[in-house]
Amino acid sequence: MHQLVREHFAPAFSIEELGDSAVIDISLSGICEQGARLAFTTDSYVVSPLFFPGGNIGELAVNGTVNDLAMVGAKPLYLTAGFVIEEGFSAPELEKILFSMAAAAKNAGVKVVAGDTKVVDKGKGDGIFINTAGVGVVHPSVDLSAKNIAPGDAVIVSGFIGDHGIAVMAERNGLTFDPPVLSDTAALNGLTAAMLKCVPDLKAMRDPTRGGVATTLKELALEAGVCIVIDEKALPITGGVRGACELLGLDPLYVANEGILIAVVPQDSAGALLAEMKRHPLARNSAVIGRAGGADSGKPGTVLLKTSIGGSRIIDMLQGEQLPRIC
Amino acid sequence: MHQLVREHFAPAFSIEELGDSAVIDISLSGICEQGARLAFTTDSYVVSPLFFPGGNIGELAVNGTVNDLAMVGAKPLYLTAGFVIEEGFSAPELEKILFSMAAAAKNAGVKVVAGDTKVVDKGKGDGIFINTAGVGVVHPSVDLSAKNIAPGDAVIVSGFIGDHGIAVMAERNGLTFDPPVLSDTAALNGLTAAMLKCVPDLKAMRDPTRGGVATTLKELALEAGVCIVIDEKALPITGGVRGACELLGLDPLYVANEGILIAVVPQDSAGALLAEMKRHPLARNSAVIGRAGGADSGKPGTVLLKTSIGGSRIIDMLQGEQLPRIC
Repeated sequence: MHQLVREHFAPAFSIEELGDSAVIDISLSGICEQGARLAFTTDSYVVSPLFFPGGNIGELAVNGTVNDLAMVGAKPLYLTAGFVIEEGFSAPELEKILFSMAAAAKNAGVKVVAGDTKVVDKGKGDGIFINTAGVGVVHPSVDLSAKNIAPGDAVIVSGFIGDHGIAVMAERNGLTFDPPVLSDTAALNGLTAAMLKCVPDLKAMRDPTRGGVATTLKELALEAGVCIVIDEKALPITGGVRGACELLGLDPLYVANEGILIAVVPQDSAGALLAEMKRHPLARNSAVIGRAGGADSGKPGTVLLKTSIGGSRIIDMLQGEQLPRIC
Repeated sequence: MHQLVREHFAPAFSIEELGDSAVIDISLSGICEQGARLAFTTDSYVVSPLFFPGGNIGELAVNGTVNDLAMVGAKPLYLTAGFVIEEGFSAPELEKILFSMAAAAKNAGVKVVAGDTKVVDKGKGDGIFINTAGVGVVHPSVDLSAKNIAPGDAVIVSGFIGDHGIAVMAERNGLTFDPPVLSDTAALNGLTAAMLKCVPDLKAMRDPTRGGVATTLKELALEAGVCIVIDEKALPITGGVRGACELLGLDPLYVANEGILIAVVPQDSAGALLAEMKRHPLARNSAVIGRAGGADSGKPGTVLLKTSIGGSRIIDMLQGEQLPRIC
C-alpha cells in the first residue's frame, strides 16, 4: 500500500521525491516584497463517506486548505499532503482521490511539494484520512481582521448556504433529492483575489465550514465586539437544501459549506463588491445578508436573526457537532 | 473532545486562535536574504503505542518534522499540528501529549502557529494520529544533495543505531530490558547548524527513520550513483539493541531511528566534522562508518557491508514494513 501511494503520488503531483523537505526558490513568489507576510495553515480531513455528490475527500482537502489561506487574504502557493491509510483500502479509490487532489491543486494554481503516507492496521482507521498544510503570501496592502469591523458595515455571503453538509448527510443516509444537492467544494482564491482588487478596504473574510454560517457570524461578532444583524429573507438557500433540512431536522444556518465565504465590507463599498462578486462563477448568488449593528441593535458579540415573520432570534455557536465528520 | 483540544491546544502553544491561517511577519527570519530558499515538509505520526520508553507521539511529531527540515540544511521556524482523535480518547493522555509537543517545540526553537482537530467515532481511529508540517529557511550557502556525493567521501553516523525501533517494539510486546532501551527521539537542528558551520562543504544529510540506516544508505547510493561501502565493525550499536535484535529476529541496520543522522562529507573534512560532532550532546557517539567507493568497489547504486568476519554483503532497501507503525 505504501509503495502504491509512492507510485501514484509522485506522478499525480509531478514531484520526484516523497518524505524529505521540499526546498523552494521563493524569489518570484512575492513573499519577500517589503511588508508582505507569510500565511501558514493546516487541516485534517476525515469526511465520511469519502465520496459524496459533488466531490470527494481529495479535492475537499486541497480546496479547504487553499480557502483557509485565501480567507486571510493570502495568495496560496504551496501545499503538503499527509495520508493515513487503513490497510486494505481500495487502490482504485486511492487513485481517484489522488488524481482529484492533483486536479484541484492545478485548478487553484497551487503546487503540492511534499507528502507522507502512513498505513494503519485494518480497524484502526477508516479508509483514508488526509492532512493538507499550505503556505501563501499576504500582499503588503491586505489587512483582514474581524477587529476591523465597525457598526454599519455590510455582511455579504457569496452563495447558497448548506449545500456541502446536506450532500454529505444525504449520501450517508442513502437519501436522494431531485435535483440532487451537490457539495459546493471549490477553491475560493480566484474569487478572493478579485474581491481584494475591487475593494481594497475589505475588512474580513471567513469560510463558514464546520458549524455553518451561524458559527462563523458569531465568531466574527465576538472578535469584532459588535452585534451582527442578519435578515432571514436575504439568506440564499436552495429549495433542495431547505427541504432536506426540514426532512433531517437541521437548521441550514448551522450546516457546513465548503465553497462559499462571508465578507464584511464598509457599507459604501458593498454595492461595488457585490457587483464584482456576481461576475465570478463561484459567487453568482452573492447577497448582502445583514450588517454590523450600532448601539441601537443588540449587545456586542451577539448575532440577531430578523425572521421572515418579523420577530428576531439570537444565534449562538454550534454546540457539539451537529454533523460529525462533515469535512 | 473538540472543545477539550481547543482548551488545551491554545495554552500549550501560546496561540490565540485555531483554524484560520497564521499570518507571519518573516522580515527577520532570513527567508528573504538574497539566495535563501524556503523548506516545507509534512509527516503524519501513527506510532503504536502512543507512549514508549523515552518518548511519546507528541514529541516524535515535533522532532520528526524539525529533523526533516534540518536534513535539507534548513533552520526550522514554524510548525502546524493536525490531530485526528478517536472518540473517548483519554483527556489526561491528550494533555500529556500536547505539553510534550510544546516542550519539544520550545527545545527545538520552533513555534507552533496553527492547528486543527478532528474527532472520529470510536473504532474508526486508534487513540490519536498527529500530522505536523514545518517551514524553515535554507541559508544561501547551503547546498545539500545526494548528487554532490563523490567517490572517496566519508559516511558518518551521529550515534547509536536502532534505539527508537527497539524501544517501541519492546513496549508493544511487553518486553523490558535492563538497562532499558530508550527511543532516541530528539531535534537535530542544533547539531546540523553546528555541523554546517564547521564544514560548509558538507554534501548530504539524512535521518534514517523508517527503514533504518540500510534504507537511507541505499537511497543515497542510488541518488548519488555511487557504491557505498560500510564497515560492520564501525557501526555504533549498544549491547541492549544488539541483544534485543537477536531476540526479536531483527537486523539493527533496518530498525528505525528518530534522533540520529547520516552525513556524507569530503574525506579531508571528515576528521574536523567528527570532532565537532562529538562535542555535541546528541552526537557523542558519532563514527565514520564507511565511504563512497570508487570504480574498485561495487556497482553504482549498491551498498556493500564489509562484515566483521571479513566477507561482504549487499544491503538492499527494506521491503514492506518490517516494523509497522514505528513512527
